[in-house]
Amino acid sequence: MSHHLGTRSGGTPDMAEIYSDAATIGHALAFEAALARAQGDEGLIVRTAADAIVAAAGGLHIDPEELADEAEHAGTLAIPLVRRLRVALPEDVAAKAHLGATSQDVADTVLTLQMKAGARLLDRDAARLCVALCAHAERHAGTPAIGRTLLQDACPIGFGLRFAQAAAGIDDARRRLADEIGTAARIQLGGAAGTRAGLGGKGAAIAARVARELDLANSEPWHARRTGLAAVASALAILIGAAAKFARDIALLSQDRIAEAREPRVAGRGGSSAMPHKRNPTGCQVALSAAYRAPGLAASLLGGLPQEAERGLGGWQAEGPVLADLFGLAAASLAAMTIVAEGLEIDADAIARNLAEAGQGSDIGESEALVAALVAHIGRS
Amino acid sequence: MSHHLGTRSGGTPDMAEIYSDAATIGHALAFEAALARAQGDEGLIVRTAADAIVAAAGGLHIDPEELADEAEHAGTLAIPLVRRLRVALPEDVAAKAHLGATSQDVADTVLTLQMKAGARLLDRDAARLCVALCAHAERHAGTPAIGRTLLQDACPIGFGLRFAQAAAGIDDARRRLADEIGTAARIQLGGAAGTRAGLGGKGAAIAARVARELDLANSEPWHARRTGLAAVASALAILIGAAAKFARDIALLSQDRIAEAREPRVAGRGGSSAMPHKRNPTGCQVALSAAYRAPGLAASLLGGLPQEAERGLGGWQAEGPVLADLFGLAAASLAAMTIVAEGLEIDADAIARNLAEAGQGSDIGESEALVAALVAHIGRS
Amino acid sequence: MSHHLGTRSGGTPDMAEIYSDAATIGHALAFEAALARAQGDEGLIVRTAADAIVAAAGGLHIDPEELADEAEHAGTLAIPLVRRLRVALPEDVAAKAHLGATSQDVADTVLTLQMKAGARLLDRDAARLCVALCAHAERHAGTPAIGRTLLQDACPIGFGLRFAQAAAGIDDARRRLADEIGTAARIQLGGAAGTRAGLGGKGAAIAARVARELDLANSEPWHARRTGLAAVASALAILIGAAAKFARDIALLSQDRIAEAREPRVAGRGGSSAMPHKRNPTGCQVALSAAYRAPGLAASLLGGLPQEAERGLGGWQAEGPVLADLFGLAAASLAAMTIVAEGLEIDADAIARNLAEAGQGSDIGESEALVAALVAHIGRS
Amino acid sequence: MSHHLGTRSGGTPDMAEIYSDAATIGHALAFEAALARAQGDEGLIVRTAADAIVAAAGGLHIDPEELADEAEHAGTLAIPLVRRLRVALPEDVAAKAHLGATSQDVADTVLTLQMKAGARLLDRDAARLCVALCAHAERHAGTPAIGRTLLQDACPIGFGLRFAQAAAGIDDARRRLADEIGTAARIQLGGAAGTRAGLGGKGAAIAARVARELDLANSEPWHARRTGLAAVASALAILIGAAAKFARDIALLSQDRIAEAREPRVAGRGGSSAMPHKRNPTGCQVALSAAYRAPGLAASLLGGLPQEAERGLGGWQAEGPVLADLFGLAAASLAAMTIVAEGLEIDADAIARNLAEAGQGSDIGESEALVAALVAHIGRS
Repeated sequence: MSHHLGTRSGGTPDMAEIYSDAATIGHALAFEAALARAQGDEGLIVRTAADAIVAAAGGLHIDPEELADEAEHAGTLAIPLVRRLRVALPEDVAAKAHLGATSQDVADTVLTLQMKAGARLLDRDAARLCVALCAHAERHAGTPAIGRTLLQDACPIGFGLRFAQAAAGIDDARRRLADEIGTAARIQLGGAAGTRAGLGGKGAAIAARVARELDLANSEPWHARRTGLAAVASALAILIGAAAKFARDIALLSQDRIAEAREPRVAGRGGSSAMPHKRNPTGCQVALSAAYRAPGLAASLLGGLPQEAERGLGGWQAEGPVLADLFGLAAASLAAMTIVAEGLEIDADAIARNLAEAGQGSDIGESEALVAALVAHIGRS
Repeated sequence: MSHHLGTRSGGTPDMAEIYSDAATIGHALAFEAALARAQGDEGLIVRTAADAIVAAAGGLHIDPEELADEAEHAGTLAIPLVRRLRVALPEDVAAKAHLGATSQDVADTVLTLQMKAGARLLDRDAARLCVALCAHAERHAGTPAIGRTLLQDACPIGFGLRFAQAAAGIDDARRRLADEIGTAARIQLGGAAGTRAGLGGKGAAIAARVARELDLANSEPWHARRTGLAAVASALAILIGAAAKFARDIALLSQDRIAEAREPRVAGRGGSSAMPHKRNPTGCQVALSAAYRAPGLAASLLGGLPQEAERGLGGWQAEGPVLADLFGLAAASLAAMTIVAEGLEIDADAIARNLAEAGQGSDIGESEALVAALVAHIGRS
Repeated sequence: MSHHLGTRSGGTPDMAEIYSDAATIGHALAFEAALARAQGDEGLIVRTAADAIVAAAGGLHIDPEELADEAEHAGTLAIPLVRRLRVALPEDVAAKAHLGATSQDVADTVLTLQMKAGARLLDRDAARLCVALCAHAERHAGTPAIGRTLLQDACPIGFGLRFAQAAAGIDDARRRLADEIGTAARIQLGGAAGTRAGLGGKGAAIAARVARELDLANSEPWHARRTGLAAVASALAILIGAAAKFARDIALLSQDRIAEAREPRVAGRGGSSAMPHKRNPTGCQVALSAAYRAPGLAASLLGGLPQEAERGLGGWQAEGPVLADLFGLAAASLAAMTIVAEGLEIDADAIARNLAEAGQGSDIGESEALVAALVAHIGRS
Repeated sequence: MSHHLGTRSGGTPDMAEIYSDAATIGHALAFEAALARAQGDEGLIVRTAADAIVAAAGGLHIDPEELADEAEHAGTLAIPLVRRLRVALPEDVAAKAHLGATSQDVADTVLTLQMKAGARLLDRDAARLCVALCAHAERHAGTPAIGRTLLQDACPIGFGLRFAQAAAGIDDARRRLADEIGTAARIQLGGAAGTRAGLGGKGAAIAARVARELDLANSEPWHARRTGLAAVASALAILIGAAAKFARDIALLSQDRIAEAREPRVAGRGGSSAMPHKRNPTGCQVALSAAYRAPGLAASLLGGLPQEAERGLGGWQAEGPVLADLFGLAAASLAAMTIVAEGLEIDADAIARNLAEAGQGSDIGESEALVAALVAHIGRS
């Protein structure tokens, strides 16, 4: 896991793995290998050259820190990486590596491979969180509790309805992310100006092969058309927001004097350096903290959409770190709230007492039917 | 049209109409009428009461400015509006109006009705813009022009490819908006705490009827679950960004010394108060200006997602004006860029001259096939 | 007051007046008159021409809606406005109006005049709010109450300390706004490309005169240097955030079961269309709602800073409506929270009861000294 | 330097040092040591205990990765850090460490120490950049060049005026940052609920001593009053935006066909993996990329202002990584643009040719006087 005390994005170990330097380099080399293999298959380069490139890419050991420094200096990762690859090849083959590709082809393909892997993790985690929420929803669907609107006691609700609503929001966000990834996680292969010049007129076939090998959607080049990425960033911010809605509710419910639900006790978590009696909603803190950061991150991709001409200046180079932050924040948030949901302590007495004190009766309307409908909808996804 | 010199969002007359006070009041009364009719049909209230409410809602004349002042004071539009409706009814029927509904039911239904109408306009306008762009794309698919990356001359492209790419971005944004509206434009009917108490156990049936009458999707209540609205806001910002990508390109192409394309001359537009020779890209200005504003607007809905409990405080009340701004900006942007696209002046000599000066040959790779593929994809939508 | 039901920014009547069309037109004509007078004084134009322009500007009646439509079409307010002014002048004088100025000179000067007037209102309102907060702070400085951290009962505080902290935040924001306005509210007079060509070598002297007459700071042209405006926008967002911090606290304190403080009852305010027993924190809602919107608005000015060359495309045209929104939101927020603060109902019994139930004793540390220090600091401003 | 290929914020080595784990731990221990010494001086703890704590803090070796994991689990850095400190102390002294302080006291003091150090670096770098810009401004003050507005040729300017304007923007941003740091870089010492309970009535004196030792401004506690931090974030975004304005101009000027100025050739920088002839404006790319990210980052601190009660949940925990990103982006941006400015290649022939082709004469108005005035103003800071 990243060890930056002050600045870590709070990603989980498995998300940090996805965005590790090793994974980044691995994806970049996988792109170069897939490109060579596709060009060999299509006869653009001879088979032995393709094989040599594939072998070299597979065997290359790269020092991440050194590469990072060179990439920063060059302004792109591809230049120092391709240089290393070519050095590892016989002279007559070296020029065949990265043939017809441009730096952004590599960078964008790495980006989409990481997005796809990251989204798979989030999908799994969101599903797990929804399962926990739906269980609470169904168990407490018929338990009368006071509902609160504009932070004031309002009318009774089934206590489980709040969980069903939270789950429905997270499930909606999960579907949107999956949909957007389905189209946005696609191959980038356009060459210098996005025309696929230098691919011997076989660019479409080569791109299709590379996409298939890397398990990405096929696509025309999209160097300066970033709508898909902006949509993924928005979908991540919505997922983070949906998880934070549940966190906000738990934080409010766990206030002393209300105390209807509390995060589980986890050894070493939620303590205070000054107050031994405190039991802080640390899981909710993680999720709420993520939700303060996500909107601005998503906005920066929205703001970068009007990129210049064939490949822009500054806009696309800003996207990678922002997307990595969003995936990290989403992972941390879902992980934290899953612990909260799975171990949630619900105080039936407090629920009943607060309801009684509110003095609004106990008519929970159609809460149970609504819970059933919401849970059924989530179950279908 | 709104006449606020300093602050108008730049919406078009037909978008301003959708967000006019008259339309807002009309939608709110349509909700009350549909609710009464559905309650009559389901036997919750007697038919004559339903008819009286429908008639009163249809005949009510409300002064918008007076209502706005009262709504601002009350903190909600529904209270002064329902009061007016009840005053117009016989005493025994008055209490049957707005039965089982809450202020936010009205507010959110108005919001979704306006969203749906607004999105229909944008869909039409985006389609028209895409048609114009695809025509340029096909006409100039095989015209060699210098491509530019990182704002530097790079390699040749087919001049039409840039239009195809711009159209593909706008088309992608258009589909996303339509998809999001398809689910987000849905009925809100939950009552005070979102349980549909007070609807005699017939809440689901009544909601379904109201949705059908208002041509909205049916839905469980979603008072504090705002993911759909945040997604619509993001989709609008993406659409605005995609239009601005085209605007950025035209603005760059119309620079003196490059001058490959220019906005059409429109009488009285693009002039300068100080320089009679100037011909400013005023259409692009509108679209770029919108794109500076959209990301922050979308972010504010993303930031409002963690709303409190059954119905939150401050979050949902912030959404209406922001969505109205986004729709207005999108409408203005599409209108401006449609004028630009339809009347675009393309200078073939300048294109050829700039290509020659770049000295990178004229191999446009697979530009024509890419244009065909992109246009075909757009055509299917 | 603006009467847009769905989209009004919630500005107060006096802030709406500052941003009214009449005020906008008035400022623009005042600029043209001041420019003519200064040019007359410096001998650039003959005195009689100057007098004629001043008289014409003073006597011009302009239909705002008509002007708005023309300005939207032209892409700038100045062109149709200057045309009207010239039409009202003898032919030989007409060309002397607006001499050496450019559209953005007019637009920016109007912007700064409105900013200055708006900031003066906010300064007055923030001061009044601070006075009310300091009074609560001092009255309750020694009243033990349970303090809350991470939304959990923590240790006792003096109940007044929270008000002193809220006031200190608002006061800090108030000073920052005043400081930024002090430099940002400055004359814009640069002419077409910001060189003051066309002012006969007397541009500096003319600018100084215009600044003095309009009570703005003197300045070199700043057409594409927008740091001051971005700072004003940020200062407004900070002020809105500081007011919302107080709103958040009151909303939390007024929750049932805690109930230590409540907004005053205001006839017709805070009611619910569904629940007659409800008493919603409507003032806090206004302030919190503003705080959801302000960050994105401020961000849009930050995002517009890298404007192109001498005068940019799209960036500066986006600023006016955003600043107007921020001033409107700040005004509404301060007005709402002043009503809350001045009429706040504090329940000493609830405070004591909650403190006792927390069981953390009643040691309020140095709360009283802190209140005194914070209030003294505020008092000095 | 951080070696995260995909996600590095682009900070410079010396800024990365300031935000390194070692520095973070060092500051936290320095806080604990200063607190103990101040408490010894004020007689709250015995001198020998103070000395022991100071010695232990100075001699403690902490594994950053281990600490980071524990901090993430605990929800705060202070708990595992203070535990380590106490373990290193005799039993009777252990409880005297961190006496009267709370986790946020440590966290916020670390934050302000890093802010102060970061701002000092930026101040130095911005000054150096301004010097380079002013030199260009003065050298080319009288060189006629075509000015451009709305991306179109407009009227002549002195070529140096653009540099003077860019420098003035950066200088304005530099002053603002220094001003904001002057007040925001202040001690945090409030204890559990911000009352300074547990400091024996000597909290004010102890805080003053700690502030002095750590070279921070003295202050009352500001746990939930974050206006100062939001202002620092805004000031950083403005600085990044001001640097990006210069970057935008150079990127536009270095377009082929215009080519009036170009970034210097730096070995290994600005190349293209596909086009050996390319010379990309990589320094401008760094600065523009930073400017796409900064507004959203600043907005997230603005959005976090309404923090709850005495110390909030989620808001303040989100600030640290965001501020670190902003400092890193600002450092990278200034470093990149300083290289650009100091080595800028200006093509006098291209300037003259473009001016001639524009056909607007060569009257540069008062450009030289404006350059002199702007440079003089910068020189005074």
